[in-house]
Amino acid sequence: MIEHGLDSGLDPELDAFYRVLERRRDVRAEFSGEPIDDDVLMRVLGAAHTAPSVGMSQPWDFVLVSDTEARARFREHVLGEREVFESQLDGERSQTFRRIKIEGILESSLGIVVTYDPQRGSPAVLGRHAIADAGLYSVCLAIQNLWLAATAENLGVGWVSFYREEFLADLVELPDGVRPVAWLCLGPVRELQRVPDLERHGWRRRRPLTEALHRERYGKR
Amino acid sequence: MIEHGLDSGLDPELDAFYRVLERRRDVRAEFSGEPIDDDVLMRVLGAAHTAPSVGMSQPWDFVLVSDTEARARFREHVLGEREVFESQLDGERSQTFRRIKIEGILESSLGIVVTYDPQRGSPAVLGRHAIADAGLYSVCLAIQNLWLAATAENLGVGWVSFYREEFLADLVELPDGVRPVAWLCLGPVRELQRVPDLERHGWRRRRPLTEALHRERYGKR
Repeated sequence: MIEHGLDSGLDPELDAFYRVLERRRDVRAEFSGEPIDDDVLMRVLGAAHTAPSVGMSQPWDFVLVSDTEARARFREHVLGEREVFESQLDGERSQTFRRIKIEGILESSLGIVVTYDPQRGSPAVLGRHAIADAGLYSVCLAIQNLWLAATAENLGVGWVSFYREEFLADLVELPDGVRPVAWLCLGPVRELQRVPDLERHGWRRRRPLTEALHRERYGKR
Repeated sequence: MIEHGLDSGLDPELDAFYRVLERRRDVRAEFSGEPIDDDVLMRVLGAAHTAPSVGMSQPWDFVLVSDTEARARFREHVLGEREVFESQLDGERSQTFRRIKIEGILESSLGIVVTYDPQRGSPAVLGRHAIADAGLYSVCLAIQNLWLAATAENLGVGWVSFYREEFLADLVELPDGVRPVAWLCLGPVRELQRVPDLERHGWRRRRPLTEALHRERYGKR
C-alpha cells in the first residue's frame, strides 16, 4: 500500500482523494448511532448513483431500513449464520473467529439493502449478452462509490454478508427476480480503525500489491 | 445527480472528491495513446489493492497487457461479439447501436485484465459461506477504486465486456478456476466527455436517483 502522508508530494486534491481510499474501513464496532444528516445521506446515495453500469442499465436500488424491529430480525438471522460458519472451523480458526465482530446492524444509524434488478434495461442490455454477471458487477461499483463517499463524509460503512439471500429478499419484500447484493450498515462513527479488523484480530494478513501484478500473462512477473 | 459546482458550499477536499466521481467516464474514443507514467500506474493499481474484500481475501489479480498483438487478437474477438449482439437487435436499436463505439483496446495505452481467484483464502473465507458471489463482488470494488483513482490522475478507463470469458482466460493464460472479470482500457485521454456515450448517442437515459430509493420495503417511497 502506498502511504500518502504530508510529504507525498502529490497535488493536495489528489492526495486528499487517496487518503479517503486509505481511511475507508469495514466498520462493525465503531458506530455511534447518531442520526445521519439528510443532505449528507443524499450526497452519499447520489455518489452511488453516479457509478458506471453495463449498458447504462443502473440496475441498483437502495432500500433504506431504519425500523428497529426489521433490523433486529435481520441481526438474529445473521447471528444464526455466524454459527453456521463457526461450525465449519476448527482449532485456531475457530478461536480467532470468536474474537471478531461481524456486524453493527443495530449500532449503526441506518441499514441499506442494495439490490440488483436483471430486468432493468432488458432485453438488450448493451455489454451483457456474453457476461450475465456484468449487471451484478455494476451494482458493486455503486456500492464502492457509496462506501468511499461515506468515508469522505466521515461516516462509516459495514458490509454484512452473513445472510441467505432469500431471507433478506423476504424481509424487505423484493419482487421476484430482484436480488439482494448487500446489507450496508451506515452511520457516524467514533473513529475509523487504521488496520482492518481481520488483520488486527489475526484472521488474515494483507497480500503485497506486487504479488497481484502480472505482465502480459498470468504468472509472468 | 447532485451538481457540485463552485458554489456547492462543501469543504474543498470533499468537493474535489465528489468531482472525481462526476468526471469519471467509460472511455472509448478519447484515448491519446501516450504512455502512462510508472508512478501514476502504481498509485492507480495501489488504489485498487486498498479495496475492501470479503474475509480480506483480496481475490483479485491484474494482468497488464501492453503487447500489441495480444491486444489486436482480443479486439478481433470483441468485434465478433459486437456482431453477435447487433444481430439480436432490430430497427431503431440496431441503428442506434451502430453509432456507438464499444472499445478502445488499441488506442488506449494499456489493457488490464482483472481476475477473480475463488481459491484465495479458501476453504474458510469469512463472509462467503452463504453468498458464493461475495468474492466476485470484492473484485468489482477494486475495479471501482482503480477507475476513480485513474480519473483523479486524469487518465481514462474503459471497461470492455463484449467477450467470452474462455477466450480471455486463454489469451492471458489464466490457471483453471481463475475467472476474468474485466478488460480495462487505461491511458491518458484528450478529454473526458461530460455526458456518458450511451446517453449522448440516444441508447438510454439515466434514471433519477429518487426512483432507486425505497423506505423500509421495496416499492415503498
